[in-house]
Amino acid sequence: MGLDYRVKCCPDGLVTDRRRRIKVLDCTIRDGGLCNAWNFDHAIVSRVFRSLVDAGIDYMEVGYRASPSIAAGEDVGPWRFCREEDLRRAVSPGELKLSTMVDVGRIAPADIPHKKDTVIDVVRIATYAHQLDDALRLLDDALAKGYETFMNVMAISTLSPDDVDKFLIRLARSGVHNVAIVDSFGALYPYHVRYLVHKYMNYLGEGIKVGVHFHNNQQQAFANSIVAIDEGVDFVDATILGMGRGPGNCPLELLLFYLDNPHYDVAPILELVEIFSELNEQLRWGYHLPYAISGYYNIHPRSAIERMSRADRYEVREMYEQLAGRMPTTQVNHAV
Amino acid sequence: MGLDYRVKCCPDGLVTDRRRRIKVLDCTIRDGGLCNAWNFDHAIVSRVFRSLVDAGIDYMEVGYRASPSIAAGEDVGPWRFCREEDLRRAVSPGELKLSTMVDVGRIAPADIPHKKDTVIDVVRIATYAHQLDDALRLLDDALAKGYETFMNVMAISTLSPDDVDKFLIRLARSGVHNVAIVDSFGALYPYHVRYLVHKYMNYLGEGIKVGVHFHNNQQQAFANSIVAIDEGVDFVDATILGMGRGPGNCPLELLLFYLDNPHYDVAPILELVEIFSELNEQLRWGYHLPYAISGYYNIHPRSAIERMSRADRYEVREMYEQLAGRMPTTQVNHAV
Repeated sequence: MGLDYRVKCCPDGLVTDRRRRIKVLDCTIRDGGLCNAWNFDHAIVSRVFRSLVDAGIDYMEVGYRASPSIAAGEDVGPWRFCREEDLRRAVSPGELKLSTMVDVGRIAPADIPHKKDTVIDVVRIATYAHQLDDALRLLDDALAKGYETFMNVMAISTLSPDDVDKFLIRLARSGVHNVAIVDSFGALYPYHVRYLVHKYMNYLGEGIKVGVHFHNNQQQAFANSIVAIDEGVDFVDATILGMGRGPGNCPLELLLFYLDNPHYDVAPILELVEIFSELNEQLRWGYHLPYAISGYYNIHPRSAIERMSRADRYEVREMYEQLAGRMPTTQVNHAV
Repeated sequence: MGLDYRVKCCPDGLVTDRRRRIKVLDCTIRDGGLCNAWNFDHAIVSRVFRSLVDAGIDYMEVGYRASPSIAAGEDVGPWRFCREEDLRRAVSPGELKLSTMVDVGRIAPADIPHKKDTVIDVVRIATYAHQLDDALRLLDDALAKGYETFMNVMAISTLSPDDVDKFLIRLARSGVHNVAIVDSFGALYPYHVRYLVHKYMNYLGEGIKVGVHFHNNQQQAFANSIVAIDEGVDFVDATILGMGRGPGNCPLELLLFYLDNPHYDVAPILELVEIFSELNEQLRWGYHLPYAISGYYNIHPRSAIERMSRADRYEVREMYEQLAGRMPTTQVNHAV
């Protein structure tokens, strides 16, 4: 029915669907872990892994790797560190590509094993633009150890186009395989995405794949992913039921519906919805006004996340008025 | 900050922002009333009215008008009928345009007062394409009585392009002032919207304004509104916090952020969020998997709404498999 209508409403020549073969990266455990301090049972991670394999998903990001010395709090679950014994209890190699994310400044190259000693295929480096020297050192190390590599330069919505150009020029000759456009603050509208997709593709050249990682502050994570797909990106990040920090991410199930590609089967993902809906009742990621406002004002979601834990979480007019510059700004947290 | 970034990221000539002066129609009480059987206190409706006026909103749809004889159930609130005495307790004329919706088959022309005897400015007629004869009779009556008129032809995602052409040709010479593209089932993606906006504008001509009324089954209500704005529509429907049947509508607050027009002030709307967030905790409109699936399969949301009241509401795999034709379809409700 949906398909039938689509055909009827899109006669050839009137509307062109520029979708091509997209790779899908699920980061439910890694980004969703920001909601529950990575306290997922091994059994849940294993079940997610199996469903992602059955659904034909291309990449699963299992968590972060970090140096054991980083202060991470008592109640932090195993996917903050992705020790090899935890990984091997929950996932197995060879069925889809497994990724861990590393944060610049929270891991030393010595704490990343050689590719042959781990189930992990991909090192994804999360960096701010001003940390790029350190990020490139991590990249060189990961390439030397035999990994496929991704680079996520975060918070680009706070940078000038010149600053974006500068890091793209360096990444173009870095040897990295994949680069994601990262909307850390959920600030981007479709016209930003169109502009950035073309910039990234032009500067990075044919040899480097371009993807997107979007947040849902303004209900644009899936919509912006559609824009990026239509403009020609190579991969899209998504999470089950959109689980992720603050408002969450592009929902994997909606992305698979849209891709309409027999390579994927959404049904095994739908079986996980019950579990994640229950998690959502506790953890409350999704559309809430404080996130919409922080996204619109292009600031880090932390002040909105803090507000969501308060009884007056929806008394948002003063939050808005301060950011709009119409009230004293002494209490405003502009920090990035 | 958001604004600054937008300017930086959209140098002239690279990205064109085709937004023009959009009119905003708030239908929180009318469409949101489908969630709570229009049981809004007069005081709440009055507060919504005042906030919409302060925010600069162009139209407020206060509810439905219907013949007193329609079976409407015991617990149905006043905005299902919009009797003049209820209207006058909650709203006042002249501050923004006030609309009531009428459903073909649920009202006789005799039950619609003359414009001079009511605070209402606009009659908005909701019809299916196959009821257009009756809808045009209601339209003639409303025009004769002095109203501004809107026509919402519903469930267009189930029609062939030829059938859409046919009703547009009739509407083009009907005298109607405004026609909305209505995505009753939340089935439309941006490429459908682009196609339909051009079709409606081409067929209806310069003298009839075109708008959109979108549902959020696939998190596309606001995103599709952006597409429609960029393609040149004249008005957009929205509701506070997206309140509306099933997954709800385009959130008014996000729309006002995007329009970025000093004619509007989002702050008075944000003050209402607390009230509507509380309502949402009870009524649960928003993104839930049953709605996503019914939207994708382009069917009426009623089976998904029914499922949301059940304990197994998120056991959606079988719902999907049946609609996908991979399981026996005896239990499937395809009804429109």
